[in-house]
Amino acid sequence: MQTMMPPGGSKARSQALAELSVLQHQLLTAEKTGQLLEQAQQESLDDTDRANLLEMRRHYDNAVLVPEWLVEAKSLAGARCEHAWRSQRPANDWPGFADNLREVVKLSREEAQIRAQAAGSSRYDALLNLFEPGMRSSDLERIFGDLKTWLPDLLQKVVAKQAQQPCLMPQGPFDVDTQRKLSLSVMKLLGFNFDAGRVDVSAHPFCGGVPEDVRITTRYNDQEFLTALLGIVHETGHARYEQNLPRDWLGQPIAQARSTAIHESQSLLFEMQLARSSDFLKILRPLVVAQFGDQPALEEGNFIRLNQRVKPGLIRVDADEVSYPAHVILRYEIEKALIEGDIEVNDIPALWNEKMQQYLGLDTVGDYRNGCMQDIHWTDGAFGYFPTYTLGAMYAAQLFATIGNALPNLSDDIARGDLSALFHWLQQHIWRHGSRYPTETLIVNATGESLNPHYFRQHLENRYL
Amino acid sequence: MQTMMPPGGSKARSQALAELSVLQHQLLTAEKTGQLLEQAQQESLDDTDRANLLEMRRHYDNAVLVPEWLVEAKSLAGARCEHAWRSQRPANDWPGFADNLREVVKLSREEAQIRAQAAGSSRYDALLNLFEPGMRSSDLERIFGDLKTWLPDLLQKVVAKQAQQPCLMPQGPFDVDTQRKLSLSVMKLLGFNFDAGRVDVSAHPFCGGVPEDVRITTRYNDQEFLTALLGIVHETGHARYEQNLPRDWLGQPIAQARSTAIHESQSLLFEMQLARSSDFLKILRPLVVAQFGDQPALEEGNFIRLNQRVKPGLIRVDADEVSYPAHVILRYEIEKALIEGDIEVNDIPALWNEKMQQYLGLDTVGDYRNGCMQDIHWTDGAFGYFPTYTLGAMYAAQLFATIGNALPNLSDDIARGDLSALFHWLQQHIWRHGSRYPTETLIVNATGESLNPHYFRQHLENRYL
Repeated sequence: MQTMMPPGGSKARSQALAELSVLQHQLLTAEKTGQLLEQAQQESLDDTDRANLLEMRRHYDNAVLVPEWLVEAKSLAGARCEHAWRSQRPANDWPGFADNLREVVKLSREEAQIRAQAAGSSRYDALLNLFEPGMRSSDLERIFGDLKTWLPDLLQKVVAKQAQQPCLMPQGPFDVDTQRKLSLSVMKLLGFNFDAGRVDVSAHPFCGGVPEDVRITTRYNDQEFLTALLGIVHETGHARYEQNLPRDWLGQPIAQARSTAIHESQSLLFEMQLARSSDFLKILRPLVVAQFGDQPALEEGNFIRLNQRVKPGLIRVDADEVSYPAHVILRYEIEKALIEGDIEVNDIPALWNEKMQQYLGLDTVGDYRNGCMQDIHWTDGAFGYFPTYTLGAMYAAQLFATIGNALPNLSDDIARGDLSALFHWLQQHIWRHGSRYPTETLIVNATGESLNPHYFRQHLENRYL
Repeated sequence: MQTMMPPGGSKARSQALAELSVLQHQLLTAEKTGQLLEQAQQESLDDTDRANLLEMRRHYDNAVLVPEWLVEAKSLAGARCEHAWRSQRPANDWPGFADNLREVVKLSREEAQIRAQAAGSSRYDALLNLFEPGMRSSDLERIFGDLKTWLPDLLQKVVAKQAQQPCLMPQGPFDVDTQRKLSLSVMKLLGFNFDAGRVDVSAHPFCGGVPEDVRITTRYNDQEFLTALLGIVHETGHARYEQNLPRDWLGQPIAQARSTAIHESQSLLFEMQLARSSDFLKILRPLVVAQFGDQPALEEGNFIRLNQRVKPGLIRVDADEVSYPAHVILRYEIEKALIEGDIEVNDIPALWNEKMQQYLGLDTVGDYRNGCMQDIHWTDGAFGYFPTYTLGAMYAAQLFATIGNALPNLSDDIARGDLSALFHWLQQHIWRHGSRYPTETLIVNATGESLNPHYFRQHLENRYL
């Protein structure tokens, strides 16, 4: 749908997907399903079955709350909004987009209201819980509140420091077919299983599919290849998690990825912790040169600086890891207010401009396509998703710090292009567990402590100050 | 699945499709569906609704006969057989293939038995009726029996005549990307709507998807481009039928293509009646030369001879239109005996060899991959499908003869590359009617008479003798 479908197929596909989501909802919420879950609860189960049942129960409880008409209406409104967004964004057509988004927000608020009532939580927490079970906005206020105390200052210092370090830009054009070959060679280095997945081109990069057939996408620009390349590394992190979920339980809830934040921790571990480290960039550089030939901007020192550049910009997906949390906090604050009913869709652009100015010092007035229309998430009604990006960055930093302690030769291994010990550690401590443990348990088992934002700050300071 | 899926995704996809086919079957055969159909029968309906209800009834009656387990088992066995066939065919592995095929045949016989009992027909007729409603094997015996009296003789005469006409083969290689560009230019000439479809590469060419998103495929060979090119023309005929089914009723039975034979009549009208005519070849030639440059084999007279060559061969999909019916009769006789229980899977190779010798004078002993393993149809249990290819060729000849009378300037129009009157006629007389009328009525309305094989014989004699 995202990579191959001709535009005329959109309506029929949306209708088919809405129909399927209703059928899926009917099956999951059937009276019989509830009875079977009750029965299973009474049986003597081993740890695995018990964990699986707990996840089934969670899915069932989440699904049974939402009436069928709302599931279908959300799916249709989301598909319509997203499809129109594809042409509205290039046209900077905010009024047109807002019309569709209002419907998505209205339905998302209804869903949030129903879930909040059942959970005894706030509306926003009820949605957040779908992506990151156990996380509350009070936790986010604390974590993001702390970030806001030191991040703008760090950002300023890094930008000032890097202003002293000249950095050459690679000179294109960079042939798209050659970029594709480079992507494939990097995916191979990172252990992507091509028997169980592929890479294509789409408007917005993503990782999707099923563990046996993981589809990742990128978008190429023939004037600049690093964004696509590091995007490939990012999606490959997602893909390897999916491809290594427990095979014996595929199709069962226990074999699903733990949460969106843990998923993001894997992509960011690949992209930020691993691929933008000086160690890795030294082995990435020859792969780039093999495809495009050498040039001054690809000299080792410059290549490292290029990939560790910090430059506040308008586009979240292209942001460096220092300014990225500012994008997330901005969206979190807006979407929380939107779902709680404190603001309306029409209020978004002004708020967006104000916060972009405040957190990143950038002006976005009138530039909707590089402002509040840049992302796909709200079009589908995925409110509560954005915070998981920064939680993921924090989990990634914490995991990589732990791996560094567990594997004293890691730096040498990377220099030799041998990533097997790193991947083995991730396989043992994260991938193979799927959803067997709650996020908290998974992280404590893997790192010895709960989520600790200190590692993220330490990582940024070590790399950039 | 056929064009993009990595091999590791096959099992999960098969399971998902089997699950969907069961859900679809459950919905169609639900008690409630039967009750609604009964109710609708009593209502006062206009002609369109009445025709639509008749088709709904036919789908319901066909579906309600087959138990759910059999639907799922057939889907799974078919997917397994087809997937294994993809590697077994190149390996010429008949014993491996036969193991899977036996299961498909066993389940197809069970289905045929159930349907035959309900219809009071033979087993084979019960399956034939799914593809070509109203057609009986007694009709086929008559039509194919007649063909067998004159076709082998005609074939011999044509081969002898063409032996006197030297024909140069185009010298390759023919770059696959350039072939793709040529395909696109020919699809454009033939009116393919690229907003509602696309062309890709697959092991076995097909036309699939939905009217709003029609997917056609081909397979390129860099030593020989005409097979792929005329294959594209063929699938474009299928595609234009789909893309022009009545928009107001899409998703309803009345908006579906009438039958597999009528579908094939459109592809063969495009490929055989139109594209291999001297008129059309004269405008196709410059498109070919524009991509590959000129060469002696592309001189007009030789280009026409190339595309009207008759040469009995092993592969049905590559066969010329004179020898094609022999391939179909062979498969019809074998699959009928298989379904009726007169032979077993193990008997296929010997029978195949015997009939290839008898009808086409060719030896296939031991060459399973170019013999009984060449086609995909039996792998999916599509018994009763093959006859519709030759019925389609006969409908195509009858339709094109009618069009020739209705459009006295057709030959000049084609020479000017103006196919609009031809497509308008097809739109008015075939495409826009979908399944509103039974095949018999559709053809009588369009041509003034029932299926008359005389037109097919006349076409072959006119073109080739």
